[in-house]
Amino acid sequence: MTDAPIRPEARAPRGFADRRGRDLIAERRLVTRVSAVYERWGFEPLDTGAFEYADALGKFLPDADRPNEGVFALQDDPDDEGNGEWMALRYDLTAPLARFAAQNWETLPKPFRRYAFGPVWRNEKPGPGRFREFVQCDADTVGSDRPEADAEIIAMACEGLQAAGLAPDLAVVRVSNRKLFDGLFETGGVEDAGQKLTALRAIDKYDRLGWEGVAALLGEGRLDESGDYTKGAQLPSKVIGAIEGFLASANSPDLSRAETLDAVARSGNIGAVGEAALAELAAIDAALNAMKVDQSAVRFDPTIVRGLEYYTGAVFEAELLLETTDDKGRAVRFGSIGGGGRYDDLVARFTGERLPATGFSFGVSRLASALRAAGRGAADAVRGPVVVIAFSEADMQHYLDAVAELRNAGVAAELYLGRAGMKAQMKYADRRGAPAAVILGGDEIAAGQVTVKDLDAGRALAAGIADNEAWKAERPGQVVVPRTDLVATVRRIVDAPRTDA
Amino acid sequence: MTDAPIRPEARAPRGFADRRGRDLIAERRLVTRVSAVYERWGFEPLDTGAFEYADALGKFLPDADRPNEGVFALQDDPDDEGNGEWMALRYDLTAPLARFAAQNWETLPKPFRRYAFGPVWRNEKPGPGRFREFVQCDADTVGSDRPEADAEIIAMACEGLQAAGLAPDLAVVRVSNRKLFDGLFETGGVEDAGQKLTALRAIDKYDRLGWEGVAALLGEGRLDESGDYTKGAQLPSKVIGAIEGFLASANSPDLSRAETLDAVARSGNIGAVGEAALAELAAIDAALNAMKVDQSAVRFDPTIVRGLEYYTGAVFEAELLLETTDDKGRAVRFGSIGGGGRYDDLVARFTGERLPATGFSFGVSRLASALRAAGRGAADAVRGPVVVIAFSEADMQHYLDAVAELRNAGVAAELYLGRAGMKAQMKYADRRGAPAAVILGGDEIAAGQVTVKDLDAGRALAAGIADNEAWKAERPGQVVVPRTDLVATVRRIVDAPRTDA
Repeated sequence: MTDAPIRPEARAPRGFADRRGRDLIAERRLVTRVSAVYERWGFEPLDTGAFEYADALGKFLPDADRPNEGVFALQDDPDDEGNGEWMALRYDLTAPLARFAAQNWETLPKPFRRYAFGPVWRNEKPGPGRFREFVQCDADTVGSDRPEADAEIIAMACEGLQAAGLAPDLAVVRVSNRKLFDGLFETGGVEDAGQKLTALRAIDKYDRLGWEGVAALLGEGRLDESGDYTKGAQLPSKVIGAIEGFLASANSPDLSRAETLDAVARSGNIGAVGEAALAELAAIDAALNAMKVDQSAVRFDPTIVRGLEYYTGAVFEAELLLETTDDKGRAVRFGSIGGGGRYDDLVARFTGERLPATGFSFGVSRLASALRAAGRGAADAVRGPVVVIAFSEADMQHYLDAVAELRNAGVAAELYLGRAGMKAQMKYADRRGAPAAVILGGDEIAAGQVTVKDLDAGRALAAGIADNEAWKAERPGQVVVPRTDLVATVRRIVDAPRTDA
Repeated sequence: MTDAPIRPEARAPRGFADRRGRDLIAERRLVTRVSAVYERWGFEPLDTGAFEYADALGKFLPDADRPNEGVFALQDDPDDEGNGEWMALRYDLTAPLARFAAQNWETLPKPFRRYAFGPVWRNEKPGPGRFREFVQCDADTVGSDRPEADAEIIAMACEGLQAAGLAPDLAVVRVSNRKLFDGLFETGGVEDAGQKLTALRAIDKYDRLGWEGVAALLGEGRLDESGDYTKGAQLPSKVIGAIEGFLASANSPDLSRAETLDAVARSGNIGAVGEAALAELAAIDAALNAMKVDQSAVRFDPTIVRGLEYYTGAVFEAELLLETTDDKGRAVRFGSIGGGGRYDDLVARFTGERLPATGFSFGVSRLASALRAAGRGAADAVRGPVVVIAFSEADMQHYLDAVAELRNAGVAAELYLGRAGMKAQMKYADRRGAPAAVILGGDEIAAGQVTVKDLDAGRALAAGIADNEAWKAERPGQVVVPRTDLVATVRRIVDAPRTDA
């Protein structure tokens, strides 16, 4: 009996994805374009670390039932005093900003506008298309209570959507105000904070469950299709009725922002707190109008809540209006691709001083996959480097000179460094998306020539090469030129319009 | 007695840094430039997740005495079968690549060249300037055993150093081969794997401890200045003597690569395994010469070991030759700013099949801070957006129009959104690094004019504004122009050569 070596299985952790090629390039391009919009609006870049202390991060995710309430947490090693504090990976870019702003407020320009992008981590139950690491791209203004600050964030989000490649009719930002629900609760005599939070998270599912599901979650509870029972918020039925009327008060997509506010006001029951919330939205509307933001680009919608607990006033949600199809041809609605709102208490948690703030976050990974599924905004086929074919150890100097000449001329190029034959090398070049292959056989070298194969033009043919003989036969897109014309010949191919696969 | 609210303290976790402004911009520029070099050499981008399963990541860090052996690890929540696997944050970009390559080998182009950048995490003891999260930028070739693959990686690292802003005389890549030590051990009869690893890690400290310190660690052990005792490798004294002769065999900086190999060969004791290692280095030298890589840019140096356990052959280390001074004016040597080598067994861990690989990793954070300390390659002073001053709620439309016009012309611009007076707004604009401030007072609006203040030119003056009266006084760099000339006037300031603070 022998001990076989124990080999780890090569697999990425559940809910974590590897990205390369087109997908990665498209995602990076999204971040670059949205960041450029943020910079043009005067937002400066900030990078905070992946970890925050758990108490600084706070517990604001709608995942109270998940282990560690939805975050990846670990206890730090003991410091010199023997204390090992709990740290957690950031679940968004807002909570770390609040910590940073509180820590550095004295020295920051005020208001402080910053943008940030990078991965965030949520310890959600992994599943197909449900990831536990994803990229966000945020812009926030800390230290302004002005409605113009909210309007600016909203208008900038609209510009970001267009920069991402979405025509104005393909996306909409919906806006509401959390305090409208505070008003409803106050009028209805609901005072328990936990009950209110449960109710808000129920309403946040309106989009997915419809009124019937939400009503069950506002009342006793709801049994879903899988047989799981979720306990409800136990609201009095008259409050549930008031919420129904409120949510239904502005359900026509043809209403202007001002008309929506009127309709919500007429629904009654929102009390003084709700009236104040409507006044805030009216001021945001005035600023949006002053910024010439179209009625169809930004709508008021009383069903918008947002899941994160820290919002205190205006809330925003960007929705993709594209309908796409999945692998099986079924229609898929993408829904939210970003959101935000006003969080006037998140910095005050640290300092005790009021520090109003507002911001917006693009779900870059979501937006990229939506655009990809819709066939929009995807990167072109990835163009690989020019591949120089390697025949013989003895001619290595010739290959290395060719590849260096191409690179020095700014053309991405590589020498094939495996040990396979010509056929495999041509397949390799094709798989790499090489625009051209450079062939320096013994005959070419002796004659002071070089063969350049135009793979962009001949890709289909090249992929079908059966054997060396067939490959050697004359075919379109292959030229023999003097060695001194190498760079110019390759350049003509690389600079030609693409013929994407 | 009242319950005061318990407020979290706003602080970043130990060993984690916030980055903004110049530092962040300089670091991003480094990544962009080095990535561009990698792409020109034919390497494709890949992003893997932050986590790997602990068994897939392996234990290769030289931190066996740290909790979790130097990584941040946590146990995943149980899956449907009730298994909660250990996951750890990547400590480098090489181990995740090995996992990815093993997982996807069938479908990858072979050899597989990829580059990657992003944060890595090491659970080291934090201290001043010692971070637990830092950015690396790597390029690797998986599936080639050719010495040209190593030479290409080394030559590309040299080009990366120049792209980062280092003149050729400011950095050097030192190269050696781990198997030289295998030869020394074999000749000396040292067979214990743990003993060999302890010895390699001792030799890796040669730079810092000198021969005396290394000799103690190769033998019984060493008591450091802080009184900590480190147990040694317990090598026989004749082996320690052989290592001394080997390390000293090529200690002249004037030796060419070929001369260094001759000197090492003459030192004796390296046995057949060592001779084979010298032959590999000779083949790398031939390829470097064919690539016209200067003798001063890449040197062979037998003292190079590298700390990571997974290297199997050639090892590389990039060193900054700049001497810089710290805050207190003391001379600081930066030492290593990157490294790499051949790791022919790391993919085979998963597959059992031989899959040779080689790569290089830039320590981006280290390189950026070295360049900064040396006053080279740092970003210019950060130029903020043009700031439009806000006087009156009633004139908001005028301010918003001005800021939109500037943005639409491609000029980064913002409206001041705080509630402070003129003096504070001018200080704000200065602190933001605004090139200009746009002033639309009631008089200007009535007269169809606008005041544009050139802050780039007048920054020092503007920073010293004492009060509104003084500010109102005539000063250089302030012009009143027709409102229609706003964009052109601002453009002249923004496009003018910078007068950096």
